[in-house]
Amino acid sequence: MSGLAIYRTPIAQEWIDYNGHVRDAYYGLIASLAVDTLMDRLGMDARYRKESGCTLYTVEMHTHFLREIGVNDSVEVQLRILDADKIRIHAMLELVCDGRTETSATCEVMLLHVRQIPTVRTAPFPEPIAAAIADLRRATASMPASGPGSRRMELVPR
Amino acid sequence: MSGLAIYRTPIAQEWIDYNGHVRDAYYGLIASLAVDTLMDRLGMDARYRKESGCTLYTVEMHTHFLREIGVNDSVEVQLRILDADKIRIHAMLELVCDGRTETSATCEVMLLHVRQIPTVRTAPFPEPIAAAIADLRRATASMPASGPGSRRMELVPR
Repeated sequence: MSGLAIYRTPIAQEWIDYNGHVRDAYYGLIASLAVDTLMDRLGMDARYRKESGCTLYTVEMHTHFLREIGVNDSVEVQLRILDADKIRIHAMLELVCDGRTETSATCEVMLLHVRQIPTVRTAPFPEPIAAAIADLRRATASMPASGPGSRRMELVPR
Repeated sequence: MSGLAIYRTPIAQEWIDYNGHVRDAYYGLIASLAVDTLMDRLGMDARYRKESGCTLYTVEMHTHFLREIGVNDSVEVQLRILDADKIRIHAMLELVCDGRTETSATCEVMLLHVRQIPTVRTAPFPEPIAAAIADLRRATASMPASGPGSRRMELVPR
């Protein structure tokens, strides 16, 4: 267990590509849907978004594709809040297939709280949401990583 | 122009999320579809994949979401081959919306050539494909970047 389980999904047939496995971008979709669940959990649900005009924007995402995911797999997303400040959440999402111990992918994201109206601008988290983020960070930040995080890509001899 | 234009797509309605713009994961899908076009251009098309049992796997992807993309946008993907070796291609894909000068996203990828049969193993590029990669690298590697590349994510005061 390398994070709090926050989302589960089976694999949709249309996520499979000509290589016979889940296309790279759909790993990102699974992580993105898990972030929606995270928003609900932290109080940034549809009602909050509508009433406040605020939401989260993803500003950066780094995915390591560690193992293939097939059409018969079911994926659990495990979350760690690595860091946070008044406007940002830095989180790690790990995709783990049922029945396997190894992580299939790690997906690190930087999320930014913005108010969309009248124009998109960063906005500080309201106090109850900031407290919920802090709680979740305390509960998850020190859970062990099961795969690599973001880094500068480069070709090194192998 | 910060790369060779290799792919164009309009925005599908189903890529739009509750924030009114293209969901983060679908930026990755656009980049992924552009990589398919790259494979065709380099000779790793469906016929090659079928006859050789070889294909490209994405092992790493880092996306910077710089600007929102809306349902009425049309996106061009511009490619640079940053580096390559016997089995890997390190590439940058930039997403540019028609009528705008600024890049909407940068998506850096590491692609690995594998043979899937009988079990997935890395395989060197055949000579004609290696030559095509080298040609494209020479033509694009020094084209200017219009956005940031992969890096270790961290919260720095802002």
